[in-house]
Amino acid sequence: MKRRFFLLVLFIAIGISSFAQQALFGGQPIVSPEINDDNSVTFRLLAPNAESVIVTGDFLPTEMVQSPMGEMEAPGKAEMTKDEKGVWSYTSEPLESELYDYSFVIDGFTTTDPSNPYVIRDIASITNYFIIEGGKADLYMVQDVPHGSVTRRWYDSPGLDMDRCAVIYTPPGYENSDKKYPVLYLLHGAGGDEEAWFAHGKATRILDNLIAQGKAEPMIVVMPNGNVIQDAAPGEGRDGFVTPAFMIPNTMDGIFEANFMDILKFVESNYRVKADKADRAIAGLSMGGFHSFHISRYYPNTFDYVGLFSAALLPREDASGKVYSDIDGTLKTQMDNGYKLYWMGIGKTDFLYDANKEIRAKFDDMGMKYTYMETDGGHIWRNWRIYLSDFVPLLFK
Amino acid sequence: MKRRFFLLVLFIAIGISSFAQQALFGGQPIVSPEINDDNSVTFRLLAPNAESVIVTGDFLPTEMVQSPMGEMEAPGKAEMTKDEKGVWSYTSEPLESELYDYSFVIDGFTTTDPSNPYVIRDIASITNYFIIEGGKADLYMVQDVPHGSVTRRWYDSPGLDMDRCAVIYTPPGYENSDKKYPVLYLLHGAGGDEEAWFAHGKATRILDNLIAQGKAEPMIVVMPNGNVIQDAAPGEGRDGFVTPAFMIPNTMDGIFEANFMDILKFVESNYRVKADKADRAIAGLSMGGFHSFHISRYYPNTFDYVGLFSAALLPREDASGKVYSDIDGTLKTQMDNGYKLYWMGIGKTDFLYDANKEIRAKFDDMGMKYTYMETDGGHIWRNWRIYLSDFVPLLFK
Repeated sequence: MKRRFFLLVLFIAIGISSFAQQALFGGQPIVSPEINDDNSVTFRLLAPNAESVIVTGDFLPTEMVQSPMGEMEAPGKAEMTKDEKGVWSYTSEPLESELYDYSFVIDGFTTTDPSNPYVIRDIASITNYFIIEGGKADLYMVQDVPHGSVTRRWYDSPGLDMDRCAVIYTPPGYENSDKKYPVLYLLHGAGGDEEAWFAHGKATRILDNLIAQGKAEPMIVVMPNGNVIQDAAPGEGRDGFVTPAFMIPNTMDGIFEANFMDILKFVESNYRVKADKADRAIAGLSMGGFHSFHISRYYPNTFDYVGLFSAALLPREDASGKVYSDIDGTLKTQMDNGYKLYWMGIGKTDFLYDANKEIRAKFDDMGMKYTYMETDGGHIWRNWRIYLSDFVPLLFK
Repeated sequence: MKRRFFLLVLFIAIGISSFAQQALFGGQPIVSPEINDDNSVTFRLLAPNAESVIVTGDFLPTEMVQSPMGEMEAPGKAEMTKDEKGVWSYTSEPLESELYDYSFVIDGFTTTDPSNPYVIRDIASITNYFIIEGGKADLYMVQDVPHGSVTRRWYDSPGLDMDRCAVIYTPPGYENSDKKYPVLYLLHGAGGDEEAWFAHGKATRILDNLIAQGKAEPMIVVMPNGNVIQDAAPGEGRDGFVTPAFMIPNTMDGIFEANFMDILKFVESNYRVKADKADRAIAGLSMGGFHSFHISRYYPNTFDYVGLFSAALLPREDASGKVYSDIDGTLKTQMDNGYKLYWMGIGKTDFLYDANKEIRAKFDDMGMKYTYMETDGGHIWRNWRIYLSDFVPLLFK
């Protein structure tokens, strides 16, 4: 009995050790965020010495802030209040179903909520998030449905002379069938990487859920890295732990577009895919929308489905001298070759709204057909998840 | 020209928008951590209103703290000092090559470094990390070598009556050969999940690098979820965004061990593996070492390689009534059946040191051979990465 008691005491120590570690490393004996029955959310922070704590995030109405470019939208802020135990709290209005980001600002210092281990990296910033269930955000959660596989896979890009990493989703059943599948190439924005649509966009969950609901065709989704000087996401490539940057050299100068066939050929030689125009789609957000616009017209008989989500449809210098050299001509060729869907979505307050309006006007002038969706809000992930959720059911039908 | 100017201005606005967002969401115009030429590290934090800022992490000598169980090791702490601009800083001693975790404590409030986007979740805590290159930590980085694929894959576990998620590493070349591979089953500790060895243990990088150096055989590594009431890691399963817990019900009561053949059969039916004892290894850290100890003797002719890393070799109640019922008899059978390697590693200050010593004494009494490694430090990830790096080259030779 003595030995058994000794070992049981040791076992209890595991729990104590964990408690000690959490006490040292940031665990707090409070719940934050707490989603209340009416879908309001209570945020809490134990910080007895703080003089001011603010919660900021996209669950609050946006505020206009001054920037060198004039007024610009920014996430809203709310003051939290301190109780006698030093716990600061704030309860939001009831919120609609959505995935929301937030941070705390403590005496002017912006940081994460130590009670919430769910974080997302957006470029160089880490923010917490939470999900309000019961509506469209149910698509962004893991449900009790069949799940596809998500693979970080490296491939050779001869055009860029490097091995590169892509995140590749194969639908439920892929591994145990002989079926061939259509492919969606899904591109990230500036400052993003091959992990963005998986981590922030919840793309693979959206696919699992739409396929399970019978709303989307089973398809492969390929999420490459659109920064041609990177082999993989910061920290996941041979450049090591660089500080993630918003503007990365050579991201919008035609080099990615000119070498896009490297990833397409890799996918078509290494996966069971239907390798024809009718079974290829390309879409992206912001810079990825810019890439999708150019790739789909530069290879004007390759994709039957194109999706531009808040696309950064801006003129850029062409490093190769050929990708951006005949935009109108290649668009005309793309139109004449025919396609099944050209989809554009943008938020009403997106700073790229006017640039997208100009492209729509150009398409109207040319007689180039497109489907258009306009949403509230600006250049934010919330809109990109919505656009993906609306776009995917239209593919390969 | 006017339109072009307008659009270029808009494009500049993307940068401004990012700047505005980072200013709001926590970016700071400083570098932290900065690794200096002598491998000392400078930490910085802009917090003009703070009265005290401490950095705590495993790069500092551990301190003994009081707990209900007596004195216990905890990460060290160092006071940071504030300059006239409100930037707090601290420079460490030169550090040996390693992956280090750290946090800031600001006026008693523990949180992350907003200038460092590299974070790891350990149970419910988020900490920052950095790597000192030039030594053993080079194994933990992505090098310019061929990379295996890492897949989050779901499989059916009939014994647990649920679909479950595992992280599966296939070595470079797996997809383009007919070769069959050996398999290492690699198990996480209490409070961990299928992502722990990938995220915190850097197991897939260690494998890529050891294989590239010719030190390890190409192998498949299967990292299942050892918490039988979870289908996947917190936030990645159908239970949604639960708070990760250290002690999860039914984790050490025989149910995982009794149903282990579900994952083994899935792997052997769905991957090109050598399905024999000589080509199966099982290893794990802490609770995963406990699981490996029990699984390898409960199926006493299944694994030629066993690795116990800081194993939680403690008596537990047996839910099934059979897994823990004849430990000595099954160990004897395992010994008589023969195996190629039984490997044990533990830190000198690990609170499980004595429990491991008792098992070694038992093995000595029985004449059961094992390889033993003792390291500095306690029950920490640093040791588990070292153990894996030492264990893997011994497999399948």
